[in-house]
Amino acid sequence: MNLLVTLDSKYIRPLKVMLTSLFMNNPDEHFNIYLIHSRIKDDEIADIERFIEKHRQKLSVIKIDNSYFQNAPEVFHYPKEMYYRLLAFKFLPQELDRILYLDPDILVINPVREFYNTKLDGYLYAAAYHDILAVKKINRIRLYPYKIEAYFNSGVLLMNLELQRKHVDEETIYSFVEKNRSKLIMPDQDIINALYSKQIKCVDEKLYNYDTRYYKYYKAITNNACDMDYIMKNTVFLHFCGRKKPWHKNYSGKFHSLYKQYEKWAITDAAT
Amino acid sequence: MNLLVTLDSKYIRPLKVMLTSLFMNNPDEHFNIYLIHSRIKDDEIADIERFIEKHRQKLSVIKIDNSYFQNAPEVFHYPKEMYYRLLAFKFLPQELDRILYLDPDILVINPVREFYNTKLDGYLYAAAYHDILAVKKINRIRLYPYKIEAYFNSGVLLMNLELQRKHVDEETIYSFVEKNRSKLIMPDQDIINALYSKQIKCVDEKLYNYDTRYYKYYKAITNNACDMDYIMKNTVFLHFCGRKKPWHKNYSGKFHSLYKQYEKWAITDAAT
Repeated sequence: MNLLVTLDSKYIRPLKVMLTSLFMNNPDEHFNIYLIHSRIKDDEIADIERFIEKHRQKLSVIKIDNSYFQNAPEVFHYPKEMYYRLLAFKFLPQELDRILYLDPDILVINPVREFYNTKLDGYLYAAAYHDILAVKKINRIRLYPYKIEAYFNSGVLLMNLELQRKHVDEETIYSFVEKNRSKLIMPDQDIINALYSKQIKCVDEKLYNYDTRYYKYYKAITNNACDMDYIMKNTVFLHFCGRKKPWHKNYSGKFHSLYKQYEKWAITDAAT
Repeated sequence: MNLLVTLDSKYIRPLKVMLTSLFMNNPDEHFNIYLIHSRIKDDEIADIERFIEKHRQKLSVIKIDNSYFQNAPEVFHYPKEMYYRLLAFKFLPQELDRILYLDPDILVINPVREFYNTKLDGYLYAAAYHDILAVKKINRIRLYPYKIEAYFNSGVLLMNLELQRKHVDEETIYSFVEKNRSKLIMPDQDIINALYSKQIKCVDEKLYNYDTRYYKYYKAITNNACDMDYIMKNTVFLHFCGRKKPWHKNYSGKFHSLYKQYEKWAITDAAT
């Protein structure tokens, strides 16, 4: 399976935790991991390489020269890395037909094979949206006049690279950013939603992009069906959304101890 | 290392979870596990045997004929199993000098070697007491006139079998139970505390018997030092004390997700 990550140095440790959980819960799979970056130092790259090698998986590092994005508008303090996810198909080997993009603030707690094989006929992506009422409404207003039926979360994106090469256009993206600069909060996610939401295949957030902040909410709206048992058995991607991260000192949350356990294994490699 | 468990059929699944966590976090250790019981069925014993064998560890099953306890008084609905922990030294091989008793409602999240090697010169046990003020006070009053400096928790007991063979006396225990029948709440723990608390070596509860109900309490009394990081790195035994257990349907607690992860591994053996 092809896996895509794009990050900077601050996220190397969460990346290792995410990958540890992926490997532990997909013991028989082989992953081709593509890391797109521009500013990670050589010794840090070497460290990531060692980590991946120890797990007998394959890493390809794609370093982007920022001159590439000379014409791309910047938004606030968001660096041009925000475009990597959107335009990954330009930098990845042309023979790849699909790839799974994952944010590093994720735990993978079940096999990913079924999701990876999702039929993508005619869709650019498969993704989940977080069905929290307030969030939906705010985004619909914010990104008006772009019609947002659902505001997809871009932390887990199964990408149809073949179709993206035909339909995703760099200039369209840049001009969207120029025009909406003041509205954008999470630029890459906003772009995907405003420009492509009709071409995103919607998948179940409880399975493929479980927002760890909303345990009680998910449980309530499913009549208690989506409890801890259900999650451990079925959920593939636990996404630690929001500003408070489980690797921060004063984090508190339902999946704190679980995250810390994987973090420990990521560091000690005791479980490999 | 020698490990002792005593349980009935209801606790087989928690036992597997506890052992899974023990094995995963002590990958280079070999355990001689002694199971003392009276009522577990043959096919259940066979299932436990398969489980232990798969993990390449050793199991000895000691079945107690209840005629052994003919003279022992019974308390309420507590079966005579309550004596197994106290009198284990009578049923275990005479050449064993020490053994680690563990309740099945425990997760072992770090190496046990250092605790197992605790010096026991002159002590019958090593154990921790839960330093919650209210609990201490209640037990001191309840077990008066027996002087209870600390009310030790008997869920984790490192046993000095050599010394117990000399100093622990069956008749003393029975007559204590006869005399105090109405006061006893958790009979075996009460007995150990009333009769032997001065011969228990006290160990740090945060490391060796962390009561999972009191995350905030431990954190507060240590000026935030005993946080999730500290626990994952240092705590050996997480003890799910109290009536609400993490395998119950509506359990909720700081270590719920962690418990469920080990439970899953115990069942699927994915991590072995």
